[in-house]
Amino acid sequence: MRTSRLFIPTLRQTPGEAEVISHRLMLRAGMIRKVAAGIYTYLPLGLRVLKKIERIIRQEMNRAGAQELLMPILSPAELWRETGRWDFYGKELLRCQDRHDRDFCFGPTHEEVMTDLFRREIRSYRQLPMNCYQIQTKFRDEIRPRFGLMRGREFVMKDAYSFDADEERARLSYQKMYDAYERIFARCGLEFRAVEADTGLIGGSMSHEFMVLAETGEETIVYDEHGSYAANVELAEVPPPPEEDTATPLALEAVQTPGTKTVEEVCAFLKVSPDRLVKTLFYQTPAGDIIVVLIRGDHEANEIKINRFLGTTGITLAKAETVSNVSSAPVGFAGPVGLKGIRIIADHGVKAMRNFVVGGNMNDTHLINVNWDRDFAVEAFLDLRQAQAGDQSPRSTDRLREARGIEVGHVFLLGTKYSEAMNATFLDADGRETLAIMGCYGIGVSRTAAAAIEQNHDDKGMVWPVPIAPFHVHVLPVTVSEQVVKTAGMLYEACAEAGLEVLWDDRDERAGVKFNDADLIGAPFHLTIGDRGLARGMVELKRRNTGEVVQLRPADVIPHVRDLLSSHDLPVR
Amino acid sequence: MRTSRLFIPTLRQTPGEAEVISHRLMLRAGMIRKVAAGIYTYLPLGLRVLKKIERIIRQEMNRAGAQELLMPILSPAELWRETGRWDFYGKELLRCQDRHDRDFCFGPTHEEVMTDLFRREIRSYRQLPMNCYQIQTKFRDEIRPRFGLMRGREFVMKDAYSFDADEERARLSYQKMYDAYERIFARCGLEFRAVEADTGLIGGSMSHEFMVLAETGEETIVYDEHGSYAANVELAEVPPPPEEDTATPLALEAVQTPGTKTVEEVCAFLKVSPDRLVKTLFYQTPAGDIIVVLIRGDHEANEIKINRFLGTTGITLAKAETVSNVSSAPVGFAGPVGLKGIRIIADHGVKAMRNFVVGGNMNDTHLINVNWDRDFAVEAFLDLRQAQAGDQSPRSTDRLREARGIEVGHVFLLGTKYSEAMNATFLDADGRETLAIMGCYGIGVSRTAAAAIEQNHDDKGMVWPVPIAPFHVHVLPVTVSEQVVKTAGMLYEACAEAGLEVLWDDRDERAGVKFNDADLIGAPFHLTIGDRGLARGMVELKRRNTGEVVQLRPADVIPHVRDLLSSHDLPVR
Repeated sequence: MRTSRLFIPTLRQTPGEAEVISHRLMLRAGMIRKVAAGIYTYLPLGLRVLKKIERIIRQEMNRAGAQELLMPILSPAELWRETGRWDFYGKELLRCQDRHDRDFCFGPTHEEVMTDLFRREIRSYRQLPMNCYQIQTKFRDEIRPRFGLMRGREFVMKDAYSFDADEERARLSYQKMYDAYERIFARCGLEFRAVEADTGLIGGSMSHEFMVLAETGEETIVYDEHGSYAANVELAEVPPPPEEDTATPLALEAVQTPGTKTVEEVCAFLKVSPDRLVKTLFYQTPAGDIIVVLIRGDHEANEIKINRFLGTTGITLAKAETVSNVSSAPVGFAGPVGLKGIRIIADHGVKAMRNFVVGGNMNDTHLINVNWDRDFAVEAFLDLRQAQAGDQSPRSTDRLREARGIEVGHVFLLGTKYSEAMNATFLDADGRETLAIMGCYGIGVSRTAAAAIEQNHDDKGMVWPVPIAPFHVHVLPVTVSEQVVKTAGMLYEACAEAGLEVLWDDRDERAGVKFNDADLIGAPFHLTIGDRGLARGMVELKRRNTGEVVQLRPADVIPHVRDLLSSHDLPVR
Repeated sequence: MRTSRLFIPTLRQTPGEAEVISHRLMLRAGMIRKVAAGIYTYLPLGLRVLKKIERIIRQEMNRAGAQELLMPILSPAELWRETGRWDFYGKELLRCQDRHDRDFCFGPTHEEVMTDLFRREIRSYRQLPMNCYQIQTKFRDEIRPRFGLMRGREFVMKDAYSFDADEERARLSYQKMYDAYERIFARCGLEFRAVEADTGLIGGSMSHEFMVLAETGEETIVYDEHGSYAANVELAEVPPPPEEDTATPLALEAVQTPGTKTVEEVCAFLKVSPDRLVKTLFYQTPAGDIIVVLIRGDHEANEIKINRFLGTTGITLAKAETVSNVSSAPVGFAGPVGLKGIRIIADHGVKAMRNFVVGGNMNDTHLINVNWDRDFAVEAFLDLRQAQAGDQSPRSTDRLREARGIEVGHVFLLGTKYSEAMNATFLDADGRETLAIMGCYGIGVSRTAAAAIEQNHDDKGMVWPVPIAPFHVHVLPVTVSEQVVKTAGMLYEACAEAGLEVLWDDRDERAGVKFNDADLIGAPFHLTIGDRGLARGMVELKRRNTGEVVQLRPADVIPHVRDLLSSHDLPVR
């Protein structure tokens, strides 16, 4: 493709709207343009990347035995009412009414429509397993759309739904999708990790997220060195401490700690380390109940775990006023000793402590030498905290490490959540009506493009992995002299002939402008053709990722590039 | 692909909802399923056909220099308000509000979004021409969605938009798209005709429709034998009659014609042929004015032409009561003689007549020997009637023929309708702000699939043209004997290896069931493998379109099929 015939409106300045790197670079490289908040047009360069990701996804989904179909974007409300999600989904669901006042939503996911298809069409266990996928534009009305394609409202997604006759076979379908996802992200050339994850609003009994590793990721994952364990920090299990403190309980004592509201301030004032202090957190359930959660001073509470224990969703930290009413002390000085009629639960880590520090339930006061078995009653000790780097792995003797990631895929073993709500049954071998066991599997296609940039960029622009680069080779003639233009044209043709996707910057622009745009766009190979080089019979090939430059005779360019690309599954002849 | 692994829920019975052939067959062959009125899921077989059509469209659009991008499905209302279409489009436009109460529509077409992109990004004539296209799901809230994919509400469309510096270049862009469309429908294997068409609600100065010819088509087209002229009958020009009647005017006479309300009844009663009678049609404009239109008895009025002359849209035939009030006669007996204060216009055909019959403006009465120059005043004679078979071509000495067609593509030369409303300008070579000249170009992708079936079917099912068939070869083992299954598997592999798309009916079903399903699905080649044939070392190849059957040795199947397909651009090695 010639630049003069391709609409690539590159920008020198970063538009003010862009908050994250992928958003900034996609705008600057002319890959996307905003139409409304969280709603973008994919320009030709951006669409090329999407299509490449889609192609890899299709191949691997087909290979895994999934069948492509295409469900409608509009879903009738009736189906969503059957599962209760019409009300439950809230404002993220974009709703509309047709001219006959019938309710529809712009589908953010398609469990309902797929399950409806299943129950109408599938009769017998002989027709199972069934796994159908689609690649489609979806909509979620995020309250604060931002970060470009990382958190758009209208986005492209691959979603798949599996139906099996029993739990064991459903796990097999799940595993096939898990394996396909590993191949997909590997083939995209991305560094990623599959981690155990929370099932959240989708529900189900098991789930893994596929995280593209990037410092700018919104998610934190923990993993052990030898691959025995990896999980979203939201879900990561923390085993109880292997040893408990066996010190003799000392006499409880109230001490003045004026103005020390944070853990750091208290510890500095009392000259103890944070692992000698216990934080007293007051949570309010959606029903309005107050519950106290105790966490060691150097640990963080995990609200998902607390919710799971309580059987709630959406607990929040109680307001300062509520804490004062309950404990008679301002936040920072509230503690478990002497609280009346309030449930207290504690993290395992607290169980192992003796003679610790807590708030004194009185302004500017803490208690020291507190012991839970003597000074207050704990309803239950359990895993209530966030995992962190240095914790012991729950599956090995390794210590956990932390990394930041961007969620690009998510697989769920749903069980019968949807088949039960919608009565999606089949007849088993004995002729019994049986609920299908379902799984669902999503990949954010447009988000994967953005995540690839978050992972692969430098201060000059994008550094595309070969398999999803918009072009493989960027031909950059630095002058318009006859021999430069002729050689550029010849190499352009040769690359195309060799099955490489090649962009030829045929604009009448200064070399500097071309180099800047080429670095911004980030094709893996830049082929620079100048008069000086040609005088020596040479052109210059730069690898965008390493910056490595080699001088080559024009005739050697294709074999050289072909050699460098031999590890990728490109249509290189 | 093996049938046992592909979700093709064929039906023996035709579902009651289906009104047209393509709808019935797509439901029966398991290609689509209804989700809501006019909203369908494309099952794997249906999606395969869509993808094939899309691929041909992409290749030809790219070849014509158009660039693919992807605009969002949701369009912000602001843009539609700029062109006035937010109000003008009416109930066909599906509207919704996001969580912040901002208005959006589910885009039925993208002139506004594309023109907005142009005005933000394009500065100079040097960046022109520009032609961008997308393939996308669109929505039009049809009042009576029916006919399956022929008139769905949610449908897949290719839409393209061109921008040029002046009218001449815009015509060139238009011609390129016209040529690309001809290649696209020809490559799809369809019989079609490009016809001059009305620009309708989209607007513009020139337009052609691409019609797939089918007896079941909703549109009528006229064309001359040698290809000089083809048009939608709505638009087709009718030249004035070459000769005028020169008979001497006879004395006007009122005759009793009791109970003869239709042209046929009057003519039979008076023993004259319909071309001796003039129909008096009373139309009401949206503003409430009444206008009389005179048309020869054997011709039909064309309301688009009448609207165009009046500068109105949406004239309607006046109600019987209005006609009686104005003419003092019931409908059927109203005529032009003696009407007071009412505009009368007449088709060219009336100008050539002498001594004709009209209604007498009195019950059960007609006038004979009427002459327009003597008996009433005509404001204008012009082309106001529908063309019909046998008319003279406006471009040649041929007679027009009629055919039925299905509109699958439509190209418009828009001019500055949208660029003016949205101020989409560029700087010309002299630095002057200039409005871009636009064109827009649509193909109904899902409708093309349906139209292909309307054109290519028989009473057993679909008869797919090779280029868009869901599969090329359908392998049909008639028993489950070892040698039959082995030969089927071998031929299946050989077809796939030869680059053919092959479906292997590996179900344990009776031969009759398999044959019926194969005829229904309509792959071009059916390869039947049975024990009796194999005993003679033969298998049977049937061509679905001609029904022709040949006995072949298994080793000859691939060369034979390859030979038959040599005229198609398939990936056959």
